[in-house]
Amino acid sequence: MGGSAANGGGCGGGGGAAARVPVPAAKPFLETLGGNMKETFLPDDPFRVVRRERGCGRRSLAVLRYVFPFMEWAPAYTLGTLKSDLIAGITIASLAIPQGISYAKLANLPPVLGLYSSFVPPLVYAMMGSSRDLAVGTVAVASLLIGSMLSAEVSPVDDPALYLHVAFTATFFAGVFQALLGIFRLGFIVDFLSHATIVGFMGGAATVVCLQQLKGMFGLEHFTTATDLVSVMRSVFSQTHLWRWESVVLGCGFLFFLLITRFFSKRRPRFFWISAAAPLTSVIVGSLLVYLTHAENHGIQVIGYLKKGLNPPSATSLNFSSPYMMLALKTGIITGVIALAEGIAVGRSFAMFKNYHIDGNKEMIAFGTMNIVGSLTSCYLTTGPFSRSAVNYNAGCKTAMSNVIMSVAVMITLLFLTPLFHYTPLVVLSAIIMSAMLGLIDYPAAIHLWQVDKVDFCVCLGAYLGVVFGSVEIGLVVAVGISIMRVLLFVARPRTTVLGNIPNSMIYRRMDQYTTAQRVPGVLVLRVDSPIYFTNASYLRERISRWIDDEEDQCKEKGEMGVQYVVLDMGAVGSIDTSGTSMLDELRKTLDRRGLQIVLANPGSEIMKKLDSSKVLEAIGHEWIFPTVGEAVAECDYVLHSQKPGMVMDSAAPHENMV
Amino acid sequence: MGGSAANGGGCGGGGGAAARVPVPAAKPFLETLGGNMKETFLPDDPFRVVRRERGCGRRSLAVLRYVFPFMEWAPAYTLGTLKSDLIAGITIASLAIPQGISYAKLANLPPVLGLYSSFVPPLVYAMMGSSRDLAVGTVAVASLLIGSMLSAEVSPVDDPALYLHVAFTATFFAGVFQALLGIFRLGFIVDFLSHATIVGFMGGAATVVCLQQLKGMFGLEHFTTATDLVSVMRSVFSQTHLWRWESVVLGCGFLFFLLITRFFSKRRPRFFWISAAAPLTSVIVGSLLVYLTHAENHGIQVIGYLKKGLNPPSATSLNFSSPYMMLALKTGIITGVIALAEGIAVGRSFAMFKNYHIDGNKEMIAFGTMNIVGSLTSCYLTTGPFSRSAVNYNAGCKTAMSNVIMSVAVMITLLFLTPLFHYTPLVVLSAIIMSAMLGLIDYPAAIHLWQVDKVDFCVCLGAYLGVVFGSVEIGLVVAVGISIMRVLLFVARPRTTVLGNIPNSMIYRRMDQYTTAQRVPGVLVLRVDSPIYFTNASYLRERISRWIDDEEDQCKEKGEMGVQYVVLDMGAVGSIDTSGTSMLDELRKTLDRRGLQIVLANPGSEIMKKLDSSKVLEAIGHEWIFPTVGEAVAECDYVLHSQKPGMVMDSAAPHENMV
Repeated sequence: MGGSAANGGGCGGGGGAAARVPVPAAKPFLETLGGNMKETFLPDDPFRVVRRERGCGRRSLAVLRYVFPFMEWAPAYTLGTLKSDLIAGITIASLAIPQGISYAKLANLPPVLGLYSSFVPPLVYAMMGSSRDLAVGTVAVASLLIGSMLSAEVSPVDDPALYLHVAFTATFFAGVFQALLGIFRLGFIVDFLSHATIVGFMGGAATVVCLQQLKGMFGLEHFTTATDLVSVMRSVFSQTHLWRWESVVLGCGFLFFLLITRFFSKRRPRFFWISAAAPLTSVIVGSLLVYLTHAENHGIQVIGYLKKGLNPPSATSLNFSSPYMMLALKTGIITGVIALAEGIAVGRSFAMFKNYHIDGNKEMIAFGTMNIVGSLTSCYLTTGPFSRSAVNYNAGCKTAMSNVIMSVAVMITLLFLTPLFHYTPLVVLSAIIMSAMLGLIDYPAAIHLWQVDKVDFCVCLGAYLGVVFGSVEIGLVVAVGISIMRVLLFVARPRTTVLGNIPNSMIYRRMDQYTTAQRVPGVLVLRVDSPIYFTNASYLRERISRWIDDEEDQCKEKGEMGVQYVVLDMGAVGSIDTSGTSMLDELRKTLDRRGLQIVLANPGSEIMKKLDSSKVLEAIGHEWIFPTVGEAVAECDYVLHSQKPGMVMDSAAPHENMV
Repeated sequence: MGGSAANGGGCGGGGGAAARVPVPAAKPFLETLGGNMKETFLPDDPFRVVRRERGCGRRSLAVLRYVFPFMEWAPAYTLGTLKSDLIAGITIASLAIPQGISYAKLANLPPVLGLYSSFVPPLVYAMMGSSRDLAVGTVAVASLLIGSMLSAEVSPVDDPALYLHVAFTATFFAGVFQALLGIFRLGFIVDFLSHATIVGFMGGAATVVCLQQLKGMFGLEHFTTATDLVSVMRSVFSQTHLWRWESVVLGCGFLFFLLITRFFSKRRPRFFWISAAAPLTSVIVGSLLVYLTHAENHGIQVIGYLKKGLNPPSATSLNFSSPYMMLALKTGIITGVIALAEGIAVGRSFAMFKNYHIDGNKEMIAFGTMNIVGSLTSCYLTTGPFSRSAVNYNAGCKTAMSNVIMSVAVMITLLFLTPLFHYTPLVVLSAIIMSAMLGLIDYPAAIHLWQVDKVDFCVCLGAYLGVVFGSVEIGLVVAVGISIMRVLLFVARPRTTVLGNIPNSMIYRRMDQYTTAQRVPGVLVLRVDSPIYFTNASYLRERISRWIDDEEDQCKEKGEMGVQYVVLDMGAVGSIDTSGTSMLDELRKTLDRRGLQIVLANPGSEIMKKLDSSKVLEAIGHEWIFPTVGEAVAECDYVLHSQKPGMVMDSAAPHENMV
């Protein structure tokens, strides 16, 4: 592969080039359809594992291994791995217990549900999940969302049993929805929540969650049910006379302790366990303080009685009756998607650190099953929270066994230790939530977005402001709306650029990017940077006309020869539909009438196929299709200079004279 | 421009190539934003006309000329042009009168409204419209849509006054919506109704309108209000005993006459006036027949009394009270968009024939104003119907003056001739509608869609079946839904292809398209065919990994050297967002860990800018960015062959050894 000349070499005669850009042979419709469906829904080719095996037994084993990834690592499990997982599992359990209790309070659910949710779902995930680092549990944002969506229609104070049942039903629907998304390979729906959306949304939700903690921090008994900044501030500052200094002091003390340990652990990653153990330490210290000083009688609210024993079954609690089912369905779908987005993003990032592969659709099925089983065993929505998974990863977990260890630790707590939490002050839980939430507000990511992409920053800011000043749902709608609008706008307004020749070469590059690129007199080379679809066909037609007008204006000013050929570089046109082919045909007619010739360079095979079947190829003339811009321009240039200038100006269809 | 070698020529040493693909200089944010906004909303640069002029007076004149295009042609108007316009105007008036009456019946409105609507709106359009060939009037599909949407909530029989007022209000909202779309340069929303959608939708609507005419054809008095095929057929065949043979005979006779004249005119375009005059002839002959035979007493329904006189004002009839306003708003927006889509498509096609330019946004403002004024003068929704505009064009119209002539002719009819329509049989109107509608079912277009693009055909079929078996709204929702899904799917699942070298050149082309293209050992060249956005970033990461896996599997089978370099051809990547830059960074890390080097070829300037600001460029190394695939592969090849084979296989980060 030497540095030889570009193919064709340009200045050869015109015509006779009929087969240079091949038109692909027609394939049977069903084959094309099948190929497209496969590429769309099975891009990761999940059946490959089965195809590789021979024989019925081995194949079913492969399927089982596919569905239950623990069968891959369990046989090779060693004592050394167990030691690592044991340390990681106990560490995350010490985080899971206070966090579980705190987040359940966010969802207006009994605190013990937080513990239940750290017992059953991790066991299911350990069997079905493909991530080695994900630690399963409830998350603050989804908990808050469940709380705010359900409370809007069912009161958790007036009818706690109904509220609980609707929460289980919502979890059930979330699980079913997640599993269905995975089974039908619709994982890409989660991709429509962009990174920018998630940064803004999570930051906003974290702010809102922190604001809600002001209730606990100030020891207030009555508080607004709204989550927006304005309502919360009004609620806090209208009750200044009810603020409890004991609560404020205790809360700020613990918050400071938690933040300082986190700061220290961040600086010295070896001491990750200090920040991991800090929440449990706070709970123990706080409970002891209250127990010893009887502060529960002096305005410090405590958790109170926690039921002893494992998860009771809740299959009969699911409520499928009319008004609540729709509420549960709506809540389930929205929170399910949010939980999925967080869980999969977390799983993927850690998989990338350790260089293994996560199958998004398989993860969805695992999350879905985990939530369906959870909803039948008194758990509410769980996913893979970032904070817990990060601790798991730092603690050196090797396999999903660390989830099993955590589960066992939580089980022991549920069986024997719940009375110990009786005196745990709520303000400590508030401090734990606040310190976790402050870590979720990702300033550096927002700054990075601003530096790299202003639109993404707007999406992020929109989501943040929507959540903080509106509600969690509004923020989500704003962010998804801006994101989708951006995609549609991109598709509706693709970029077109003028290409120029890089001197002494056959290479053509964008004139606005490469300053050395030069115009070719008489030839306008335009590059279309997107598929030509119904959404942009008429825009492109008008934009291309404007390019030609601008170019002719310039030529007139300079007294140069006007445009004779319009070369469209189709290299970046990935696809075309019937509106696109009609547009090209109309463009050809318009140019024809102005005495200009349209030339296509480097169209892809789908483009060629569609141009051929729509007869546009025939109308343009196969001799005006070239594999490269260089060859196209060389041909135009050759024809221009071999004709008398007068002829070129008059000839309405110059190519007919030559070929 | 000779056929010289491609720039660089490849086999030179590595490194030292730092500035080959330039990173564009950072522009101020507001400048970029302004540029993007302008490109998005003002792609046609409407202020150019004003900028060109100097002085305040001339500029205001330019603005006036921009808003009222008749000021462009009026001064140069000659007697010869008037003659052409006169003929065209009278021809379209002879079509407008019967069509207007018929379509008003479709909308369940008094027949005279059809005449009113052919009087005022054409005058407004003649002043503000930029098309020379468009003939303004009511259209069947929008009329049917208004009829079915309004009748669902207000009965035209029980409360005709309210129904009329809501119809005016809907027209008013349609006009406001159309004008706003134009003023805010949101014309591209109309582009989201693709050609395929419109073909299917129009065909379905035409079928439905024809089905509705069975009422008139069979002389039935009671008929279903539903528009779907099943209900209509049930309604027709449950009343076989009420069929009137007189009506059937008369209707079929006229339908046959209308179809035969149309067929004849289509074969001989010179005799266009035969088919243009046929509807009026039918009306006259039909009315005479009824008048002479007193058939109105024998089961032939007639129009009856038509009020004499010009449009009464209707500004006070607009109904903005609560329940009906929402209905009017909904109806106005939906019918407004449909009418706009038809009107603009028609205007554009004729402008293309005559090679002049139509400004979509300006047309929207003209349509909007025309409907706002119409709603204040007892007209209902008007647009530019295809049939009437085609007749106008064939009759040789030169300017929008033909609309004025038509308007005057309709005015004379309204003032003096309405009593003549007293005996016009409804069955003739049904025949006129049916013959017009049969022309709207565009079989050849549907066949063309099937041949060129199967997805477009599905969109078309979906719209057709939705309209015929569901309702007009359902058909529209189905078609727009499929179209948007297609755009989103395209953005979520872009194509990636392997490129191969065209022997004896530096050109790389898709291996599946160019059979001569050959793999380069050790180098995998991949081309990404779309912008890299949040919707497809994770798909692309997985798909690229799968390409590499597949390639390595193949290499293993053949015992060749495995992949060492992955060259991504970024030529077709028009844009990238932060999810995209993160994806590239993650891909780089993954490849690094597998001991592969990522190489980028031909990234555009936005891509370079974003890669630079996100530090991904630094991480990849500027020396691994090349302006062409040829140079990138030549460099990889050079490095591969200048190293010992063993070294290459082991080196985890080969580029660090060399640069």
